[in-house]
This record gives sequence, structure tokens and C-alpha cells, in this order.
Amino acid sequence: MAAAAVVSRAWTLASRPQGWVEPGNFRMVEAALPALNEGDVLVKNLWLSLDPYMRGRMSDAKSYAKGVEIGEVMQGQTVGEVLESKHPGFKPGEHVLTQLGWQTHGVARGTELNKVDGKRAPLSYYLGVLGMPGLTAYFGLYEIGQPRAGNTLVVSAASGAVGSVVGQLGKAAGCRVVGIAGGPGKCEYTVKELGFDACLDYKAGNLREQLKAAAPGGVDVYFENVGGEIMDTVMARMNPFSRMVLCGMISDYNSTEPYAMKMVRAILVNRIKVQGMIVFDWASRYPEGIKALAALIAAGKLKYRESIVEGIDNAPQGFIDLLQGRNFGKQLVRIA
Amino acid sequence: MAAAAVVSRAWTLASRPQGWVEPGNFRMVEAALPALNEGDVLVKNLWLSLDPYMRGRMSDAKSYAKGVEIGEVMQGQTVGEVLESKHPGFKPGEHVLTQLGWQTHGVARGTELNKVDGKRAPLSYYLGVLGMPGLTAYFGLYEIGQPRAGNTLVVSAASGAVGSVVGQLGKAAGCRVVGIAGGPGKCEYTVKELGFDACLDYKAGNLREQLKAAAPGGVDVYFENVGGEIMDTVMARMNPFSRMVLCGMISDYNSTEPYAMKMVRAILVNRIKVQGMIVFDWASRYPEGIKALAALIAAGKLKYRESIVEGIDNAPQGFIDLLQGRNFGKQLVRIA
Repeated sequence: MAAAAVVSRAWTLASRPQGWVEPGNFRMVEAALPALNEGDVLVKNLWLSLDPYMRGRMSDAKSYAKGVEIGEVMQGQTVGEVLESKHPGFKPGEHVLTQLGWQTHGVARGTELNKVDGKRAPLSYYLGVLGMPGLTAYFGLYEIGQPRAGNTLVVSAASGAVGSVVGQLGKAAGCRVVGIAGGPGKCEYTVKELGFDACLDYKAGNLREQLKAAAPGGVDVYFENVGGEIMDTVMARMNPFSRMVLCGMISDYNSTEPYAMKMVRAILVNRIKVQGMIVFDWASRYPEGIKALAALIAAGKLKYRESIVEGIDNAPQGFIDLLQGRNFGKQLVRIA
Repeated sequence: MAAAAVVSRAWTLASRPQGWVEPGNFRMVEAALPALNEGDVLVKNLWLSLDPYMRGRMSDAKSYAKGVEIGEVMQGQTVGEVLESKHPGFKPGEHVLTQLGWQTHGVARGTELNKVDGKRAPLSYYLGVLGMPGLTAYFGLYEIGQPRAGNTLVVSAASGAVGSVVGQLGKAAGCRVVGIAGGPGKCEYTVKELGFDACLDYKAGNLREQLKAAAPGGVDVYFENVGGEIMDTVMARMNPFSRMVLCGMISDYNSTEPYAMKMVRAILVNRIKVQGMIVFDWASRYPEGIKALAALIAAGKLKYRESIVEGIDNAPQGFIDLLQGRNFGKQLVRIA
């Protein structure tokens, strides 16, 4: 089979969103893939990961990574199957982690691919609990949050791909874990399934009082995935010498005006450490993180839930649902 | 001489300020001091330190230290002379560092006093460059800011008691040092007298462009004494993995609405560490700091300027001037 015979169906960026992402910001294109050069690998994507950071890539604001240009394929991680290889390290039928983005097939340099082992864990896990979200939780919580036994840990977006792992790692570290999530279903899940001590439904209102009741001794570690008013509400309860891991600000990604933090004085008065977290900074230590997370899964101490959208055609809607908090667990697209 | 014969003239808190501090927030009282108990020391204050943190003590908002109640003597550090002692560790004529506050005389427990040596440095220095402001600069910059040779350090309130030391310590650490101060006189002082590489006059406007020109490679360490819009302007230029020492927010102390930080996303995107700093946390290491600062003074590498108000009667005005940025160097009141 010649690679040129393969047509990839791909979502490209049609326009930059103003505020909320809309279906019209994406355009589906079909393109015949080029023939393979030496070192290339042709991959059929099986799973696409949808993540909040992709909202940033749709913008042209300066950030830690280059954004998507208009007309380019949307960026994203996938797990795929090798169809054809001109790289000595890969054979047809093997499974690989790729950066091929929102498309059914793609040609990658072998040097850009990492093999994954479907026997060790389901393939989709390498996009979630054993992938970027799980590693974000692992390094963000342990290295920046520095939880100690007896600490109270608060995590927002608690049922999400990162938050659900953060909370369970917090329990493993001996913390009292309080989640924040949207809706009673997500909250019940974190407490009953994941073992959080409490979970606050921010949609129920009165978050301040809920937090006071759930964290009567204040907050020692705050793992922040959402930003906005929730951030200020939690900061108002943070203890002296507490740590805030600023990992995501999903509430901000779709606003044209960024949320301004009111509790700046609390940082000074309580000597809080607020630190930004991007998982790529820990790339040299990924193997350590994956090993630790896999061991926790094997021991039954790390549970994991996926929210699956069927088919590449539905990727934009799956992403919009993610940004609006309608997903429940790690958001994926099953491509094939 | 019996202690009871001594009358202290003291400034008490008459009312809590709403916004800017006004002379009417203070009331002068005269009170005969009580007779000394065993362990007490009668002190005649010579120098009173005026510091921005005192604005916080005039408020009843929760903070790291208890505020001043209405009718109580304003809190503050002084250097004084022992007039009479019922504590074996102190003799008349010795000089001591006290927490006796805004008054001419006071009775302290000997356990609350520390001797200072007027031969090693002028007595007033123990309220400034060898006291809380100098130690704030020393531990805040070195321990939290972690400057490295070649880094660009920005310090606000650059000509002030803390900022002037921060900048000179930054030069000693091999940094490019950019100050921010109000007015050409203060700016010229930091560059020509203190050896800063540049100083930006925020009153001249256009701070963003001034900063871009003075720190073309971005900012690695930001020592923040003022807060407000200046904070956001500097944060917009901070480099990946940079550090912000949040030491003071003087621009906020007199506003009824706290300034809200707009550049929160920069903390995430650039993995900035923002950490609050209160000097008392480093009390166990003060001797190390004083020794290092005194050595730099002796070597001519640490210059220091005082802004002196004459007489206890003028303490409120001196404090108001300090809050409004009208002082130049460490603000003191010469009491006697």
C-alpha cells in the first residue's frame, strides 16, 4: 500500500474564537497524505485527546507554545496504529503516541513518536491518567503543591482529567481532599468513587460558606484548574505558608476580558506561594511519573473515568462541551 | 528617679482611616508611666521608625499581626536609651531596640528588648539598613527572589528603605538592576548614588515602554513593594521561571477597594513563582543578615539614606508623607 493512497479527514482552524468557541471556528478538510520519506511513519489515529489547553492554541496571544494558524490542522495528542513505516524503530501494527492532531491519519517523523503498550493499560489511558493530564497532576501536586500528611488540599475541576488524579494523589499523601466541581453528579462521583473527603458544587451557589464548612482549618494546598471567582474564593481561605498550583484557568479561556485576582493581599499577608505549572517542564521525569501512576492504578488506588465522543466528525462539539464543563472525566474522541 | 515621675507623650489611634490616612486619625495623649516591676526597663526613645506596614495595623482587617485598637498607642520600632532598669541584662545609658511605638518614653519587659551597638553603626541604622527593612531586602531577595548573575532584577519603591537595599544586593549578586521610583530625583539617586543600572520614573507615564527599553531581555526577579498597576506592568514583562517577591503593596494600603491583578495568566503561562514575604518569618536568621549587611556597609557596597522628621509631634505627618511617597530614603522620627 502506498501512503499517497491514504486520505486523512482533518479539522482545521477556520477562524479564531471571540469568547466561546463555536462550531464555525473549525473546518473539515480531506487531503491525500504525501508519500513517506526515509524516517517517516504513517499512522492511523485511534484516539484523540481533547484538552482545555487547546483553547489557548486557537488564540494568537503569546503563550508558552506556538498557536495554530488559520487553515492548519488543530493540534492535539493521539494514540494511533502504525500502518506503514520507513523508520527502523516502528513496525505496522504497533501503537504510538503522536502529536498528529485532530485528524484520522497522518505522517509523522519516527523521532516524534513514542510507543505505548496496550497490554500494560488501555490505549486511551496514555492520553489521560498515564499521559499529560496524569503527569500534570503528579508533578504539579507533588513538586509545587508539596502536600504533607494532615494538610487540606482543595482541587477545582475535581472530576476532570487532572483534578480527579490530583485528589486521589492527595489522599495517597495523607491529605484531607476537598474537590470543587459543577453539579451534584460530578461531586458525588469524586466522593463516592474517588474517595475525596468532600466536594463542593459551585453551581449550587454559596461556595464561600460551603468551603468554610468543608475546610474548617483553612486550605494548605490549592490545585487550581479553573481560575475566576472560584480562585478568589479559595484564596480567601488559604493558610499561612500555603501553596497554590496554578495549572489551568479554564473559566478565563473563553472570556475576552481576563478575570482579575482580588486576593493579592492574601498572598503577602499569608506568605502564599503561587506558582504556574506546565507539564512539559517535567518531560525529563515522565518515566518516573508514568511508573508511579501505573503502580497506583494496579493497586486500585487510582480510579479513572473517560468521556468519549464517537467519531472525528464530532470532535468540535466534544471540545465545546469540555470547555463548558459538560464532559465528565477525561475527554476523548474515538476516531477508529 | 522613680519611673512614676516620667510622663510619656504618645500618639494613639483615634479612628480607623477610610482610604488615605489623615492627621485626625491620631490623638496625642500624655500619661505618667507606671513604676517598674521586676524585669522592667524604662526607656527614653531616641528614634522611631515609620514604615508602610503600620497602615495595616490601623485597619481592623485580619492580617498576620494584631492591629492597633482605638485608643492604643501606635505600634512601631524605636531605638532608645535605658533610663532605669529592673532587669539584670540592662543598665542605664545602654541603647536598645524596642517595640514601644509612637511615644517619647515607655516601660518594656527586658525580655522584649535587644541591645544595639552605637559604635558599630549609627543608632538609627538599626531601624533601617540593619533592621527590618534591610533584613526584609536581604531574606526576600536572596531566599525568595533567588537572583542569579546575569538576571534582570526589577525593584519598585527603589529609593525606599527596602528597595534601595534590594537593588544594591542585586548588584552584589551580579544582576542588572532596574528600579522604579516616583520622580527624577529619586531615580537619579538610585542610579548615580546606589549604582542601579536604570531607574524608571512611574510618574513620567509610559512605564510599559520605559520598562521594555530598560529590560529588553525581560524580568527574572521582581521585588514588589507597591502593588497596583505597576505590578501588572512589570508582570507583563516577566520571563519564564521568573520569581516575584511580594513584599509590599503600598499603593493598596490606602484604597478602600483593593487592586485586582490582571496578569494572572502570565503566572501560568510563564510558570512564575509569586510568593509573599514577611520578615518576621526569618527571625531565627537575623544575626546572619545583620552581619552580612554590616559587612557590605563597611566595604562601601551598601549606601543608605534617611529621611528624618524632627520631633514626636510630627510623626503623623511623617507617616502620611511616607504613604504618599514624599519621603526619600528610610523614614525616621528623631524623638530626642
